Amino acid sequence: MKVAIAVFLHAAVALAAPSRKTKCRPAAPGLPMVVREDNVIDLTHEFNENNSYYPSHPYPFQFTEKLAGKLGNLFFRNNYYRQPEHFGTHIDAPNHFFKDGVPIQKVRITGHLIGEGYLINMKKNGERLGADSLVTIEDIRKFEKEYRGRIRTGGIVLIYTGYGEQFYNREVYMGTNMTGLEAIPFLHFPGLDPKAADWLITNRCIGAIGIDTVSIDYARATDAGSHIYLSRAGVPIFENVAHPDKVAEYGKKFKVIALPQKITDGSGAPTRIIAVMNRKE
Amino acid sequence: MKVAIAVFLHAAVALAAPSRKTKCRPAAPGLPMVVREDNVIDLTHEFNENNSYYPSHPYPFQFTEKLAGKLGNLFFRNNYYRQPEHFGTHIDAPNHFFKDGVPIQKVRITGHLIGEGYLINMKKNGERLGADSLVTIEDIRKFEKEYRGRIRTGGIVLIYTGYGEQFYNREVYMGTNMTGLEAIPFLHFPGLDPKAADWLITNRCIGAIGIDTVSIDYARATDAGSHIYLSRAGVPIFENVAHPDKVAEYGKKFKVIALPQKITDGSGAPTRIIAVMNRKE
Repeated sequence: MKVAIAVFLHAAVALAAPSRKTKCRPAAPGLPMVVREDNVIDLTHEFNENNSYYPSHPYPFQFTEKLAGKLGNLFFRNNYYRQPEHFGTHIDAPNHFFKDGVPIQKVRITGHLIGEGYLINMKKNGERLGADSLVTIEDIRKFEKEYRGRIRTGGIVLIYTGYGEQFYNREVYMGTNMTGLEAIPFLHFPGLDPKAADWLITNRCIGAIGIDTVSIDYARATDAGSHIYLSRAGVPIFENVAHPDKVAEYGKKFKVIALPQKITDGSGAPTRIIAVMNRKE
Repeated sequence: MKVAIAVFLHAAVALAAPSRKTKCRPAAPGLPMVVREDNVIDLTHEFNENNSYYPSHPYPFQFTEKLAGKLGNLFFRNNYYRQPEHFGTHIDAPNHFFKDGVPIQKVRITGHLIGEGYLINMKKNGERLGADSLVTIEDIRKFEKEYRGRIRTGGIVLIYTGYGEQFYNREVYMGTNMTGLEAIPFLHFPGLDPKAADWLITNRCIGAIGIDTVSIDYARATDAGSHIYLSRAGVPIFENVAHPDKVAEYGKKFKVIALPQKITDGSGAPTRIIAVMNRKE
């Protein structure tokens, strides 16, 4: 009986635990990079009132007070602002869609915010991806074939749909100019198939994922499937990523550095994201 | 006559232009670094209501609305906040104290936000620097002697006064618990001598400077001297820098990566600052 239990336990452990170990390539022991004048690409949109934002938010980034002038002989500027956490180029912390997920300040820098970058280019013949499309497991496998290598543990995958170019044009970026909850049925933009999110987590052990749309889930999603898989796995999400086109033009190999504002118990935060390109190809 | 003018012009160019060229070491053609699990130090305080902040600000970072709960079957969190630009670990853009200075979104990443790091350790026998003290040119020269090398063009100088350890204790960090403009006469904390700021700009062509106090100018300054020199020279300032002690413990050589929120026409912004250490010494 003891033997049977031991065998059963062993089998259970073998089934439950090792999927990440066996299917994931070991993380690199270190990420070498060289920062030069010409190889840094800023993947961040400017934060201002004109950013497109998810229509459930009651207001965009706004200066609440702008002070500028002279104090005696001194000229100074000094402003105040308010914003939704999930606004502009930002991070979703794992606690956004998972009760026990880590908040912003606890997202680890190595492993989740700095990593080997992988750009999945979904544009076809210069056209952006269809508004109601999903990026699938097949698309990622195709990317790996072209890239000639698997996405490694801790990798930061950036999905390039082509939507980012219209970030300041709400109607084109999101499908409607409307705001408020009543806008939601009219949203149209592509996203990541939840099955592909699960696959990237389970089989590639990614560190983070980003997209050049307002949400990792496509507009027509009803279950926030990719958000939930990623949140549960502790994988942060970057949304409204800017200028993946510049990465595509430069080359294939790069590192991503994504540093969010370190808000105590935040579920999201403005994030400055840059690519450090390996070398011109 | 033509000759005389040519000679005069040549002399004028020779006098006006080269001071930065002759006194500054050339910038490195590239900054190599290796990001590993054990060599990244987060130099950023968490943003929350308990941060010490300059008393002229009417309020600290605050969540204005915290949403958490279920939407059908989905659990989610989603928050809103307001804050002064010059709050927590943040950047002062050159437009903060100079009318024609560049705003946040135009501060160049290479040359100003990523650079070779230099830690000027002003603690003596474990004691933090005196509350009304200034870091002088002599202190910097002494640092260079110990470091065995000059601060290079584009270098990011971090001043370690020992105040950061008390960041959440306003009275100890700033000299008073009071808020509002009436608190200003009671502030006490050290800072950078404006002469040293000018010297670092002119003779070392630094890219940026940071300090583990609430202001690069010491509390008793009446002319914002260091702010003005640095703003005029286009050199960003990082204030409320966290954990320089961890850098000091690790070693001497490191890179700094400081990525601010990219606020259109901001004069300051929350900034995530990290050190990437070269190797354990």
